[in-house]
Amino acid sequence: MSDVTATYRVPSGPDLHKKAEGIALGLTVGSWTNLPALEQSQLQQHKGEVVSVTDDGSQATLTIRYPAANFSPDIPAILTTVFGKLSLDGTIKLVDLSFSESLAQQFPGPTYGIDGIRKQLGVTDRPLVMSIFKGMIGKGIDEFESQLKAQARGGIDLVKDDEILFDNPLTPFEYRVTIGKRVLDQVERETGRRVLYAVNLSGRTYELRDKARRAAELGASALLFNVFAYGLDVLQALAEDPEIPLPIMAHPAVSGALTASPEYGIANQVLLGKLLRAAGADLVLFPSPYGNVALAQEETTAIASALTEQAPYRSAFPVPSAGIHPGLVPQLIADFGVHSVINAGGGIHGHPDGAAAGATAFRQAVDAVQNGLTLEDAAREQKELSAALNLWGVPQ
Amino acid sequence: MSDVTATYRVPSGPDLHKKAEGIALGLTVGSWTNLPALEQSQLQQHKGEVVSVTDDGSQATLTIRYPAANFSPDIPAILTTVFGKLSLDGTIKLVDLSFSESLAQQFPGPTYGIDGIRKQLGVTDRPLVMSIFKGMIGKGIDEFESQLKAQARGGIDLVKDDEILFDNPLTPFEYRVTIGKRVLDQVERETGRRVLYAVNLSGRTYELRDKARRAAELGASALLFNVFAYGLDVLQALAEDPEIPLPIMAHPAVSGALTASPEYGIANQVLLGKLLRAAGADLVLFPSPYGNVALAQEETTAIASALTEQAPYRSAFPVPSAGIHPGLVPQLIADFGVHSVINAGGGIHGHPDGAAAGATAFRQAVDAVQNGLTLEDAAREQKELSAALNLWGVPQ
Repeated sequence: MSDVTATYRVPSGPDLHKKAEGIALGLTVGSWTNLPALEQSQLQQHKGEVVSVTDDGSQATLTIRYPAANFSPDIPAILTTVFGKLSLDGTIKLVDLSFSESLAQQFPGPTYGIDGIRKQLGVTDRPLVMSIFKGMIGKGIDEFESQLKAQARGGIDLVKDDEILFDNPLTPFEYRVTIGKRVLDQVERETGRRVLYAVNLSGRTYELRDKARRAAELGASALLFNVFAYGLDVLQALAEDPEIPLPIMAHPAVSGALTASPEYGIANQVLLGKLLRAAGADLVLFPSPYGNVALAQEETTAIASALTEQAPYRSAFPVPSAGIHPGLVPQLIADFGVHSVINAGGGIHGHPDGAAAGATAFRQAVDAVQNGLTLEDAAREQKELSAALNLWGVPQ
Repeated sequence: MSDVTATYRVPSGPDLHKKAEGIALGLTVGSWTNLPALEQSQLQQHKGEVVSVTDDGSQATLTIRYPAANFSPDIPAILTTVFGKLSLDGTIKLVDLSFSESLAQQFPGPTYGIDGIRKQLGVTDRPLVMSIFKGMIGKGIDEFESQLKAQARGGIDLVKDDEILFDNPLTPFEYRVTIGKRVLDQVERETGRRVLYAVNLSGRTYELRDKARRAAELGASALLFNVFAYGLDVLQALAEDPEIPLPIMAHPAVSGALTASPEYGIANQVLLGKLLRAAGADLVLFPSPYGNVALAQEETTAIASALTEQAPYRSAFPVPSAGIHPGLVPQLIADFGVHSVINAGGGIHGHPDGAAAGATAFRQAVDAVQNGLTLEDAAREQKELSAALNLWGVPQ
């Protein structure tokens, strides 16, 4: 039977089976034991079911199965069922969510995913390197063009807008797309390397599809999307749209409001992992475990696993972000593998010799790890990497 | 100058001015003190500004002003600016948000609001009474019709779908609208009272407008909307649509994931109060301070104030919900005033003589308070109220 299974973390305590039963019934058929047998048989296929209750003495988990017959196969209906009213019901966190096979098939997953993006870039065997525009608010299109050139020429694979750069008179969305395409085409002619630029898709919800379609027509290569400022279902609609044939990079902006508390809200692996992948994100940014805006290592690992393991969807690229500099590349590859994106802002723009050298240093660090060299050894021959290590060091 | 001002609660500590300055710059122009004077003058109008920093020794608040020049005038851009990356930045809660006058005018506020809904119902001087369908999952359209008749005939002003009833084969959306209209028209002919039925608008985001327009054509009288399973901007689009001339009732499903932690997320008065009102909710449900899914009294008061006080929008109806029975009516009116909606599910359907009697008991309780009687006095003459008080009591 098609269903969704949700696991909740709640405080340890007595009567947890009763609590779980109350949730399973309250969020489905309402009541059960006092119903006439005929009504019970009619409602059987709609009744929620307690799958398990565990209690380790400090905290407990309740796992409950909700029949898919109760909701339409869309994320808003599923979220409302499994964590609608329940999100308001005391100390409770949604820590896992699984769709049965037939329900999972109602969602698209990534259109491109890791393999599709690698194919677009012609890069098969190493982590990708991404950089972020720096301080574009209040700056004009010339600054945009020169920053993009420097980053792309230095050797990165992807460039993304800052998530706080919206459509604006100085660097309008369509200008960024058009000029972005021109710059990246030029870099490809010069270097043979294809680079993707993720333009921030912003504005009113009901304008996004037309705007994204227009971006595709104008030659955009990828979209950045602040999905949690809109809704997961909007991401899904963009991913499913055949007239928007672009990889979508999901930004975690606003998600901390849902995930940061250990006691309330939704776990990162559910929100940034499972749900973003099901809804169709091709790349997912999340706080790295290294910076000062850091997630715990186990949380970032859980997000990355949710993005890449198990059927039925294509894998999405994990993009651990914030606090990344070239000295961290061995650690990043150890933690997230070659099928991840190394993403830096300050670690590229803050390079003593500028953004192009910053990008080059990252590529040199990646090549060093791929070739089994230490960064220090590689830096002897490579001045960009050497300058980066001098500035940021290598964590021991 | 047009702007948005956000207030955050953070842990007490040293260097809070530096932290606030880091936010004000980091979420706007990026850096400041090292910029050349020319660049500073170009960026002045984009620079965030620390308005105040207070610290009472146990917790601190930071208030920061963000120029509207930095974002498009939509809620996703504003949320991403004021609580995008910042939501991921350690222990921090967004506790207040204010739009400058010119920014506020970019948002619709309620299309009907309290006055408009009162006008539709012809009820000017008392709290409205609302009831909720009971256990409709797995039930057919006959059950829908008979529950609606019982509730409406008993004297309530509004009936709403349960938020977990989605579009489904047993009670499809359009059937509920059509049959709802027929029943309510009949009740109006019989009793002279108009009753509104809020049908749950559900499904995929990009289908909602057409579905709501179709509902309006078919004679729907109001919409229920799980706004936090979609996005505030979707609510705004529905509210602004001239082809959807229906009051919108916002349900708090999923909002607890954002509001419940005292240390993280977004305060109820911001999310359920200010933002829902700005986006155009006509009625806002939130947990009452009385039930077992309760909010603190000060939080419910803050939500109600944010929905009803100050310009420039129409006032939205506060609808404190959960745990409501007729014995609580004097308390509800004392706490939320006559310009509120008294909303009950179990407190109507659980009446010993059925839902119609349950609805009547609530109306009798409201009339008693309006006429300066105690519930006990009124119950001497009124058997429905008497039975309700016998069952649920009157809190002392």
